[in-house]
Amino acid sequence: MNELRLFGVANYPEVTEGDRLADLIAERTTLEDGDVVVVTSKIVAKAEGRVVSVDRSDSVARTQLIDDHATRTLRKRGDLMITETVHGFVCANSGIDWSNVGAGSAVLLPRDPDRAAFKIRERLRAAQQVEVAVIVSDTFGRAWRNGVTDVALGSSGIKPILDLRGSLDHHGNEMTGTQICIVDEIASAAELVMGKARRVPVVVVRGIDPEWLDPTAGDVRGAVVRSASEDLFR
Amino acid sequence: MNELRLFGVANYPEVTEGDRLADLIAERTTLEDGDVVVVTSKIVAKAEGRVVSVDRSDSVARTQLIDDHATRTLRKRGDLMITETVHGFVCANSGIDWSNVGAGSAVLLPRDPDRAAFKIRERLRAAQQVEVAVIVSDTFGRAWRNGVTDVALGSSGIKPILDLRGSLDHHGNEMTGTQICIVDEIASAAELVMGKARRVPVVVVRGIDPEWLDPTAGDVRGAVVRSASEDLFR
Repeated sequence: MNELRLFGVANYPEVTEGDRLADLIAERTTLEDGDVVVVTSKIVAKAEGRVVSVDRSDSVARTQLIDDHATRTLRKRGDLMITETVHGFVCANSGIDWSNVGAGSAVLLPRDPDRAAFKIRERLRAAQQVEVAVIVSDTFGRAWRNGVTDVALGSSGIKPILDLRGSLDHHGNEMTGTQICIVDEIASAAELVMGKARRVPVVVVRGIDPEWLDPTAGDVRGAVVRSASEDLFR
Repeated sequence: MNELRLFGVANYPEVTEGDRLADLIAERTTLEDGDVVVVTSKIVAKAEGRVVSVDRSDSVARTQLIDDHATRTLRKRGDLMITETVHGFVCANSGIDWSNVGAGSAVLLPRDPDRAAFKIRERLRAAQQVEVAVIVSDTFGRAWRNGVTDVALGSSGIKPILDLRGSLDHHGNEMTGTQICIVDEIASAAELVMGKARRVPVVVVRGIDPEWLDPTAGDVRGAVVRSASEDLFR
């Protein structure tokens, strides 16, 4: 691969509970085999009806909601809680978001982002007879660096991590420790097209190395989420 | 912006001390105003002569080298040290890398990646009369998630962080806490084209929102590197 193209799916409508996200994509764009379709977790969650009525200014209710969706709290400072979600993600406020939703409401994370990615992929195949990969993305902060970037919460049809251990660089050295989280890199790339205030919740990435796509690949929860016991920072 | 294109600079030569990276880029590709040129820190460091003779199998010398380029060690497990570098980056082994270099040698991080980005940008402008941005990238691990992704070590001519605080989403809610680290997202996107074992150390990103480019923008050290006092995980 020596060129990558990313473009947003135009005129994607506001999503509400019960919407079939894949159909809304298929009606608006023509996919090709090997495309990677990146979908924000926000619309996955909305389609799942994961919207709750909690005012962000009600700090007791807000903290309770974040706690309810966490298995542990790593840090707390002012309004900010760094928690581990029931999925195993470590992020701010259990991933609960008060933006891009009506006032007084909050959007939870999707129930099972890998499963959501799988279902969208299945349905895109049925609609357009294409073999694509799907990534469900969200915006997370990081330790040690300011600012947020998009990462993958779920994936289907693509290797979440490209494992180059054992392969040789062009000096003939064995590459060690090089396991590239391509699904996070693709989510970050897609965010550049999505923007945050613009209504571009779906981005198509074209030109990904065909070897990275794999209908039987594992998923984000299995490959990317690091267990607490393996983690040096929990 | 609704489409982004990324392509590698073809046939980039092996870099050695004293090479002028910008000239090697300008000889191989025609840039346009608004392009973002992503350059791996590896070739920046090689051009700076930041190659040292330390065998990776000599664990005493290896540990000493990593220590010499760290201001603190956060964690240690087996061969892996998580350190804070003299630049303020938190990463594995002070960013010192034994891959993509001759046997028995290691490559340090560039002395000042922001300054390196600035100089490459100045020289590209002189060579092709274009106003571009430059990002110096490297591959770092993360807390909480498996696999590595590329991040920006230095930048010039682009806002490192897009600050959306105070702007409104399409529901009219004020966006809070949304400071997107676009230089890290661009570095990650470029990595998808670079690969690791292939010799593609320079990638051009075309189609970035012109508003993100700013000749007077701050740099990575100023905007992205989080100080220990502000960090919840140090």
